[in-house]
Amino acid sequence: MEKYIYAFEEGNKDMKDLLGGKGANLAEMTKLGIPVPPGFTITTEVCEFYYKNGRKYPPGFNAEIQKAVRELEEKTGKRFGDPERPLLVSVRSGAAISMPGMMDTILNLGLNDKVADGFAKKTNERFVMDAYRRLVQMFGDVVMGIKHDKFEEALQEIKDKKGAKLDTDLDASDLREVIKKYKDIIKKEKGESFPQDPMKQLQMAVDAVFGSWNNPRAIKYRELNDIRGLKGTAVNVQAMVFGNMGENSATGVCFTRDPSTGEKRFYGEYLTNAQGEDVVAGIRTPKHLDDMKREMPEIYKQLTGIMERLEKHYKDMQDMEFTIEEGKLYILQTRNGKRTAAAAVKIAVDMVGEGLIEKETAIMRIDPSSINQLLHKQIDPKAKTEVIAKGLPASPGAAVGKVVFSAEEAEEWVHERGEPVVLVRNETSPEDIHGMAVAEGILTSKGGMTSHAAVVARGMGKCCVAGAEEIKVDYEKKEFHAGNYTVKEGDFISLNGTTGEVILGRAPVVEPEMKGEFRTLMEWADNIRVLGVRTNAETPKDAKTARDFGAEGIGLARTEHMFFEGDRIVSVREMILAEDEEGRRRALEKLLPLQRGDFEKLFEIMDGLDVTIRLLDPPLHEFMPNTEEEMKEVAKEIGVPLEKIQEKVRSLHELNPMLGFRGCRLAIVYPEIAEMQVRAIFEAAANVMKKGIKAKPEVMIPLVATAKEMEIMRDLVEKTAKAVLEEKGVEIPIKIGTMIELPRAAITADEIAKYAEFFSFGTNDLTQTTFGFSRDDAGKFIPAYKEKGILEKDPFASVDQEGVGFLIKLAVEKGRKTRPELKIGICGEQGGEPSSVDFCHRAGLTYVSCSPYRVPIARLAAAQAAIRNK
Amino acid sequence: MEKYIYAFEEGNKDMKDLLGGKGANLAEMTKLGIPVPPGFTITTEVCEFYYKNGRKYPPGFNAEIQKAVRELEEKTGKRFGDPERPLLVSVRSGAAISMPGMMDTILNLGLNDKVADGFAKKTNERFVMDAYRRLVQMFGDVVMGIKHDKFEEALQEIKDKKGAKLDTDLDASDLREVIKKYKDIIKKEKGESFPQDPMKQLQMAVDAVFGSWNNPRAIKYRELNDIRGLKGTAVNVQAMVFGNMGENSATGVCFTRDPSTGEKRFYGEYLTNAQGEDVVAGIRTPKHLDDMKREMPEIYKQLTGIMERLEKHYKDMQDMEFTIEEGKLYILQTRNGKRTAAAAVKIAVDMVGEGLIEKETAIMRIDPSSINQLLHKQIDPKAKTEVIAKGLPASPGAAVGKVVFSAEEAEEWVHERGEPVVLVRNETSPEDIHGMAVAEGILTSKGGMTSHAAVVARGMGKCCVAGAEEIKVDYEKKEFHAGNYTVKEGDFISLNGTTGEVILGRAPVVEPEMKGEFRTLMEWADNIRVLGVRTNAETPKDAKTARDFGAEGIGLARTEHMFFEGDRIVSVREMILAEDEEGRRRALEKLLPLQRGDFEKLFEIMDGLDVTIRLLDPPLHEFMPNTEEEMKEVAKEIGVPLEKIQEKVRSLHELNPMLGFRGCRLAIVYPEIAEMQVRAIFEAAANVMKKGIKAKPEVMIPLVATAKEMEIMRDLVEKTAKAVLEEKGVEIPIKIGTMIELPRAAITADEIAKYAEFFSFGTNDLTQTTFGFSRDDAGKFIPAYKEKGILEKDPFASVDQEGVGFLIKLAVEKGRKTRPELKIGICGEQGGEPSSVDFCHRAGLTYVSCSPYRVPIARLAAAQAAIRNK
Repeated sequence: MEKYIYAFEEGNKDMKDLLGGKGANLAEMTKLGIPVPPGFTITTEVCEFYYKNGRKYPPGFNAEIQKAVRELEEKTGKRFGDPERPLLVSVRSGAAISMPGMMDTILNLGLNDKVADGFAKKTNERFVMDAYRRLVQMFGDVVMGIKHDKFEEALQEIKDKKGAKLDTDLDASDLREVIKKYKDIIKKEKGESFPQDPMKQLQMAVDAVFGSWNNPRAIKYRELNDIRGLKGTAVNVQAMVFGNMGENSATGVCFTRDPSTGEKRFYGEYLTNAQGEDVVAGIRTPKHLDDMKREMPEIYKQLTGIMERLEKHYKDMQDMEFTIEEGKLYILQTRNGKRTAAAAVKIAVDMVGEGLIEKETAIMRIDPSSINQLLHKQIDPKAKTEVIAKGLPASPGAAVGKVVFSAEEAEEWVHERGEPVVLVRNETSPEDIHGMAVAEGILTSKGGMTSHAAVVARGMGKCCVAGAEEIKVDYEKKEFHAGNYTVKEGDFISLNGTTGEVILGRAPVVEPEMKGEFRTLMEWADNIRVLGVRTNAETPKDAKTARDFGAEGIGLARTEHMFFEGDRIVSVREMILAEDEEGRRRALEKLLPLQRGDFEKLFEIMDGLDVTIRLLDPPLHEFMPNTEEEMKEVAKEIGVPLEKIQEKVRSLHELNPMLGFRGCRLAIVYPEIAEMQVRAIFEAAANVMKKGIKAKPEVMIPLVATAKEMEIMRDLVEKTAKAVLEEKGVEIPIKIGTMIELPRAAITADEIAKYAEFFSFGTNDLTQTTFGFSRDDAGKFIPAYKEKGILEKDPFASVDQEGVGFLIKLAVEKGRKTRPELKIGICGEQGGEPSSVDFCHRAGLTYVSCSPYRVPIARLAAAQAAIRNK
Repeated sequence: MEKYIYAFEEGNKDMKDLLGGKGANLAEMTKLGIPVPPGFTITTEVCEFYYKNGRKYPPGFNAEIQKAVRELEEKTGKRFGDPERPLLVSVRSGAAISMPGMMDTILNLGLNDKVADGFAKKTNERFVMDAYRRLVQMFGDVVMGIKHDKFEEALQEIKDKKGAKLDTDLDASDLREVIKKYKDIIKKEKGESFPQDPMKQLQMAVDAVFGSWNNPRAIKYRELNDIRGLKGTAVNVQAMVFGNMGENSATGVCFTRDPSTGEKRFYGEYLTNAQGEDVVAGIRTPKHLDDMKREMPEIYKQLTGIMERLEKHYKDMQDMEFTIEEGKLYILQTRNGKRTAAAAVKIAVDMVGEGLIEKETAIMRIDPSSINQLLHKQIDPKAKTEVIAKGLPASPGAAVGKVVFSAEEAEEWVHERGEPVVLVRNETSPEDIHGMAVAEGILTSKGGMTSHAAVVARGMGKCCVAGAEEIKVDYEKKEFHAGNYTVKEGDFISLNGTTGEVILGRAPVVEPEMKGEFRTLMEWADNIRVLGVRTNAETPKDAKTARDFGAEGIGLARTEHMFFEGDRIVSVREMILAEDEEGRRRALEKLLPLQRGDFEKLFEIMDGLDVTIRLLDPPLHEFMPNTEEEMKEVAKEIGVPLEKIQEKVRSLHELNPMLGFRGCRLAIVYPEIAEMQVRAIFEAAANVMKKGIKAKPEVMIPLVATAKEMEIMRDLVEKTAKAVLEEKGVEIPIKIGTMIELPRAAITADEIAKYAEFFSFGTNDLTQTTFGFSRDDAGKFIPAYKEKGILEKDPFASVDQEGVGFLIKLAVEKGRKTRPELKIGICGEQGGEPSSVDFCHRAGLTYVSCSPYRVPIARLAAAQAAIRNK
């Protein structure tokens, strides 16, 4: 590290790691000649040094910052502490990856008693005192760590005394009183005074920004967003410009396209006579950019010109902050704008159409996890609903849940009672994120499309209605009013994130469908990807949904799920309770037509596509009742003595059921169960064939550990299937394969492949056995493991590439050595997770299989994997 | 296969695979000029063909057997069916590996009504009718499958009618009556007559021998003795000689050395005027070879001459069958004799002294598993015992258990009640093997040292007292009488297998010690082996025993075992119930001096040797009470409300504890537990050092899945140990290593080795996770898995070399890549199992660690591995 500080003129947009995103873009804009107030950036390396050296700065840093300030003074012609022409600056954090609302900002730094007085004389006293008041408040709160309530209370007290309704009702002398009160608060709370030396202010502010890098909110944000490997934050020090110097001043944010829908139109909000934080905080409801066109046509032209230029330059939708100081426009920030998934898709596809980017770039632009949003339910547009309020459609989708009024309650209701909630707040703040994360949706009564609630909800893919001003929240009584309606905590409401409607009760929702740009993007993805994408489904509903979402077959149909349906469980229990094979066969006889019916439906839906059906997997005790109450009921139902059921339940009990009597072990001890299932599969296939449907069954053997198990099972399946096909007089290829879900299966994959036409990695069980983690019990230590950096990602959500991945690659290699044409898939939860899909692509798998709603995610992730690993 | 049948002149001793052991040795003896009745052997390949082709013989086989019979007729000058000079033969099975009592034998084949009459006229009518009677009975039983009780009953009936006490009291005409009755039984039971055509008899007998290859007894024997990969059995057809032609005839078995003690002296038993089966069956108590020296000095000289010659030829102790027909000696069989482990050791060491074999051969001669016997307890020779009977010391050792009278009861008492039993029978038969396998010891009232009971018990390394004639068994009343004593089912008795004493009640037993030849053999083994041998021990008693048995340190001291001792468990529970770290530390404080004391004792016993101590491994719920009763008690003891204990037990409950919150996961969440243990270890080491003892502690981290866990744990151990050593002012190297017991640890061994100075394979857990088998639950399917050939050996007893072994080799390779000097051991149950020891040698491990009693086994197995893999 040779240089700690870069003036904006010295950097460019490719220096994000060093200057942070904000700093790099300020530098880039400066280079492009965009009107940016001058300033400098303290590098992320200083932050890194700061944390590595017990919160100390590198040698020489002090001299360099003094020099940077002197240069800024020269550029602006102003000076720190000069009562006539004081240099005032903003101090903002900015890491390489944007973390909105997470890091802290100081404005108007450089003001002190002397400067304020001098400056007030030269300019507008009220404006200066307001600026000073804000500085003292922010500084007290953010830098000195005093609760901001203290300041709010003091302000309110004076407002009450003066009969002022709004802040703006206070005059200069009122504000002087506020400043005095504020300084008293600081003195009282901290035992030291608000610092009068601007350089001291700056140093303390830089300290605070660096300190905020590791505050709990920032850590939580990085954790939630899986952000790792950053050096730290940079600090941007920039000459202040003022949007609150009167009616020809303003401050706002704008997007080059609509961040909610992706529509190609300028989009923005601003407040006249306001400072930047007023917009983001969502306290006043802002004006729309269209108003500016009318009110300040010249500035509007200038601003939209810059917007167009920056979008072309960055080849992506830009999110900008601007300030108009007495009729002069300044751009304070530009960055690639956050957007909803729908907007991301539309923008990417549109930009390909506009010749701005390539298809591959468009595909890489979309975070596959985010398209979840596009697949989520909507309030049924045809339903009659009771709309009680309307706000801004801040984040699309639908939410139905019980009303709660705090993040804590949201967590409690969801985690402890398992109830869906809608979080209702006047406005949200970073402290509310944990509650937003668990809520179905968020409703605020204040704030715009760029308010904290809106931005965070979009990032989370959660439905949000913001700024529904009719809603009056009463936190104390735990209720809100909307017109004549009173809604209490625990009452159901529904939100329509696409229209902004707030609906009383539980509105009906409809499932999404893919269309337009999304369909186009997915087609491009399908053309590029190498991996197949199937679904894990056993119900007709799931199978249908998945096929609509583009699934190319079923990779895992769990037959045991079918055992629980309706009164089948009675026959299943009869089978388990039977004394001998004959008794079991009698009970299985009853299940046969039902299973056959299930399979017929799956084959019909998946006409022409592979349907991989896994034979019974779970231990038998999962089908038995647990409590004495239930056992009594079952005894009556089946007509056996209670004691017999208790005895059976006892004998089926296992200490470690995960590693117990399940999977093919059941089929080897009780072959009649597997025989019934295979018979049902092939009878179903033969039956639908007669209707002209092409059934392509694949029989999958679970929990194989040795080649011999596979040999025995292959023999059983083949014999049974052949017998059925002979009876039915039809020909259907008999495909038999296995799950690879035990380390031993991966290790002996070459032997197992002798008897298997396909493999499917069961990465849930494979992760459990490879790590020795029981998914059900690991909750006791996983949090500590994440905290200590032992686990970077939850291995049950994302394939552990080092450990489990080694076994996967080994099995692929060994399996294909024996049988080069071996078809290999994955059907664990991780099959639809983008980084796991990327791994599967690299490991040479044939397909991934995932839950229906993850099918489009997997298709896109597979395309990205193909591009990334070209 | 070009030749199905070999005359004895055509083979030799190296053709065991083809001719079976018996056939090959008959051929060898024939070649040596030993007096062997002529005959031929049908090869094992015919048996193999027979089973592979639906019990059919190869083409041309019939012609070849006819030719062989014709040649035998020529050699003997006798002919099948000739009433004057009839050819009579024995038909015996004989596989490549001897299976005594398992396969069936037919004698006197060739007799029929006409031959019997003619032959009777020429010779001795009673003798011929007795021979014919035996043939019909054996043929009916063994070849035609009629229960031998039927024949026994008919015989008894006639004996009763005639007032005969013994079979020999029946005269020729009585025997004719018996034969008639027997033939009627056959006709009635099977609807066909006893075949009169000798060739037909022979064909049926060969069928029966091949059939017996796969009878349940034979299969069970192969299973018990782990015999695999044989083609089948050969069939030996040999001209009959008769030991029952009067007082100058006899039949017997002899050993070139004492099979029980190994002493170098001729040893044997015979019956005059008897057929071979009479000796083996143990119905009459035979004479000793010393009697022959007196009664038939010439024959004795001839026999012992042959014995000496054959032992020198085979360079091993021989077990021979002989028959004296009217003063002429024939040898019917020779083979390497079965022997007790003690005898095996003595013979091997003696033979090295005699210059007969090399040390390496001597080492290879001993089955390591068998030396278990030498290490097992003996009745305390100094104890006062109430001896109620005395039999033959048929198999050494001691047995204390409850009396049962059938194999079924033995199994039931042991498996279902968990009680030790002594099986008491008049005599045993192959049907009793399963009962003998579970019994502590076997007592028979009839039979000699070579009776079924004696042979099988020695093979099993089980204590046996045979032929205790004072014992009168009443199966019906379930009791036995011995003089005035009556002992009922369930009463305790004790057996002294070294003296033959039967003792009332539970006699005190003493542990064995190593001496004499055994010590010599083990010294040779130690000089040859490459693998180190350590022990798994945490109690001073076990550690002492193991060191006496030659352990070179402790490979695994399980600290949790120490947590259960005395009232320590109270402090352990206090620790678990503590609200916070401070509370836990308070409870741990109490445990510290106790653990330190444990370690001091271990270090003292293992002075100068490595002591590997594993930190706490099991999940905490193992230390908590289970029933409400116990919980109440604990609540009182510790002084906390019952509810709190119940709540804690509930919260600690796990669905799959094997894969749960245990091992280093505990230490990472509650580092204070590990800190206490490490402190105890190094304080103990420092304390004993001051007494001049050399403590060499190694701290072992359990259940590591990731390198990061190891890094964190290494840091914790190092810091704590350094602090202790500094306090104590001593220097002791801090060695830290890990268990490799999860697949992921093996896979990432290169990373883990960065923080580990040694590895120890925990093959119990590694087997559970690699197979996905819970050891506690696998009982439900393991039997079926063995039966179907899915598991050849229990992977928890013997390392699964294909699956688990792959991971072991991988971890060795990866670990040593990072750290070439890495010390690697194994501490699972398999560490003392010979085939696993061989694997560990080949895998390049540094040492194996096993339970104390397995230490000598491991030392020997390690030497054999070194020889075998030279």
